Amino acid sequence: MPKIVVTRNVGEDAMAILSSSPFEIIVNPDDAPASREWILDNISDPEVAGVCVMHGQPGDKVDEEFLERCGEGVKVVSTFSVGYDHINVKAANAKGIKIGHTPGVLSDSVADICVMLTLMTMRRVEEGIQLIKSGGWPTLPWAPFVMCGPSISSPNLTLGFLGFGRISQQTLKRLLVFTSKSHPPKVVYLSSRGRPNQAEIDADWTKEFGVSVERKEKDEIATESDILVVLCNQTPETVNLVDKAFLGKMKKTAVLVNGARGPIVNSEDLAVALNAGQIFGAGLDVITGEPNIGPDHPLVKAKNCVVIPHMGSADIDTRKKMAELCVRNAINGAKGEALLAEVKI
Amino acid sequence: MPKIVVTRNVGEDAMAILSSSPFEIIVNPDDAPASREWILDNISDPEVAGVCVMHGQPGDKVDEEFLERCGEGVKVVSTFSVGYDHINVKAANAKGIKIGHTPGVLSDSVADICVMLTLMTMRRVEEGIQLIKSGGWPTLPWAPFVMCGPSISSPNLTLGFLGFGRISQQTLKRLLVFTSKSHPPKVVYLSSRGRPNQAEIDADWTKEFGVSVERKEKDEIATESDILVVLCNQTPETVNLVDKAFLGKMKKTAVLVNGARGPIVNSEDLAVALNAGQIFGAGLDVITGEPNIGPDHPLVKAKNCVVIPHMGSADIDTRKKMAELCVRNAINGAKGEALLAEVKI
Repeated sequence: MPKIVVTRNVGEDAMAILSSSPFEIIVNPDDAPASREWILDNISDPEVAGVCVMHGQPGDKVDEEFLERCGEGVKVVSTFSVGYDHINVKAANAKGIKIGHTPGVLSDSVADICVMLTLMTMRRVEEGIQLIKSGGWPTLPWAPFVMCGPSISSPNLTLGFLGFGRISQQTLKRLLVFTSKSHPPKVVYLSSRGRPNQAEIDADWTKEFGVSVERKEKDEIATESDILVVLCNQTPETVNLVDKAFLGKMKKTAVLVNGARGPIVNSEDLAVALNAGQIFGAGLDVITGEPNIGPDHPLVKAKNCVVIPHMGSADIDTRKKMAELCVRNAINGAKGEALLAEVKI
Repeated sequence: MPKIVVTRNVGEDAMAILSSSPFEIIVNPDDAPASREWILDNISDPEVAGVCVMHGQPGDKVDEEFLERCGEGVKVVSTFSVGYDHINVKAANAKGIKIGHTPGVLSDSVADICVMLTLMTMRRVEEGIQLIKSGGWPTLPWAPFVMCGPSISSPNLTLGFLGFGRISQQTLKRLLVFTSKSHPPKVVYLSSRGRPNQAEIDADWTKEFGVSVERKEKDEIATESDILVVLCNQTPETVNLVDKAFLGKMKKTAVLVNGARGPIVNSEDLAVALNAGQIFGAGLDVITGEPNIGPDHPLVKAKNCVVIPHMGSADIDTRKKMAELCVRNAINGAKGEALLAEVKI
C-alpha cells in the first residue's frame, strides 16, 4: 500500500482527510518536530508516494540530502506553508517531484497582522507597553502631544508595497478604510522581474482600489512611502532589499512593516536607522535568525520597533485551511494528479 | 482687556489662534501641569472670560471649589478632551458657565486604536511579545496551532458594542473590512437611556453598514458577542457595566476591548475572568486608576491582556484638531457666542 509521510500531526480535521485517503499514513508520533533521522528513514521507504513537511522545523529542510534519500516512488513534497525557502524546488522538480504549498488561504490573516503592525508602529504602542512594564506610567506627564505618532488618516499619504501579490492587495484593501477620504492616499509598489505575471501587470489596480496605484522603482518607493509594507517573496534578489541605502532614502516620519521574510530587511541597518531616528518606527512579524532572537536583540530592544514571533498566519481558521490544503496537495500528488497549489519557478 | 486662562500650552497652531483673538491669554508658563494654586489664582481674576482645561491633569478638576473661585466674568470652561468626567457640568451650567469639549475630531484615532486592540487581542500579540522578551522564542516548538487565536474572518461573528455613538460606528466600519464577506457578522449594541437621541434611534443602521445591526439588552450582548467593544460614556449607570455577572455570560472565545473609560469595566472581575480563561482575552486603552498602574497590576501581568497607556486619541493630527477645537470653544464662549461643541446634559 502506497504511503504518505507526515512530519507532524497537522490537526484533527486534516488528519481525518489523510486517513480517508487510499494511502497508508506514516505520521511522526510525537507532538514535536520529527528528528532528521526519523524523516530521512521514513521517506526512503520505496512505497512512499508523498511527504508533508513543515516550514518552521529545521529537520524538514528539503535539500539535496533529503531528495537523495527520497524513495523512488515519491511524487510530491507538500509544505504546510506558503513560503518555500526551505525547499530546493529546482532539484526536486529535476527528480520529478512536485512541490505543493498553501498560498491564498493565509492572505487574510497575514494582511490582518500587517495592518495591526502598521497601527502599532505609527501609534508607538511598543513604547507605550514598555512604559507601563517599566513602571513609568504614573510619572508620565500628560501633555497635548505626549506619546503621539503620525496619523494614518493624514491627508495625501503614500502607501508603498514591496511585492504586490495577494497579501499586499488584501493589506491595501484594509489600510484604505483607515486613510483619509477627502485626501486619499496614493499607492506605489515594486514588483520583481517575473512577478507579477502579465495578467497582474495588465490589471487596472487604480480602478480596483479606487486610488492611484503605480508600479515604481525601488528608490522612488523608498523616497515616497509614508507606510512601507514588505510582502515580497524571499529570493536571492530580495535578500537585503531594505538595507542602509534604502533606509537612508526613507522619510523620517515613515514606518516600515515586514510581513514577508526576515532577510529581506537587513537587521543591522534597520537597528541603526531606528536608533538614529532615520525612520519613525518598524513593525516586524519576521526577523533574520528567527526563532533564535533573544530579548537583547537590538531590534527587540528598540523602543520604536515592535517584533512579534512570526504570527502572520497564526489564526485557527487559517491554520486549518493550510493543513487541509497541505494534505490535499500531498494526496493529489501521490495519486499522480495535479496539485491544488504547486510551486512553479 | 478680557482674558482667557489656559492651563497648558496646547501647541503652536492652537496658541496662534488664541493670540490672534481679542483676548489676553494667560498661559501656564511651564511645559508641565499647572498647579492647583496657579489655576485657582488665575481663574479668580474678574477679567477672565474663559478657561481652557486639560483632562489628564489632576489640578484641572472643574469641581465646586473651581467654580466658586471662578471670577464673575467666566462664561466658558473648555476642556481639551471629549470626556468631561472631571467637570461638574450641572454646577457650572447653574452658574451660567458653558462647558466646551472636543467630540468628533478624535473618532478616527480612537476607532483605529480599538481595531488595533481587537486584532492584538485575538492574535495573542501580548503573549508573543512577552515570549520574546522573556527569551522564550528560540525554544518555542513550532506546531500547526501554536500561538493561534480566533480569526476575525471566521464566519458569522457577532460584533457587540456598549454605546453606539460616533466612535463605535467608526470602529464598526473598520472592523467590517476584516470580517467574512460570505458569512458576514451581525452587530448588536447597547444604548443607555437618553442616548442615542431620537435621530440616531431612527437611523437605519442595517442599511448604513450593510449588515444586520440590532439594539439589544446588556445580557444578550454579553452572551452573543465574539468581539465586544466598550465605547460608551462613563456615567453612574455605566460604571462597572462589565462586571463578574456580565463577564460570566460571555463566550470563552470572546475578546473584550475597552476604548472608553476604565471604570466601565471592573478590573478585579476582568482579571479573574482572564486568568480563568472565562473569556479569550482583553485589550485595554484605559484602566481604572490610570495612570497609577504599575507592572505588577494583574491586568498588566495577564498574558491574555494587553494594556496601553490611554493612547486612543494620541496621534498628531488628532491632537492638533482637539487643540484647535478647544481654543475656538473658549474664544466663542468668552465672546458670549455659541460654542462649536458644548456639553449638554
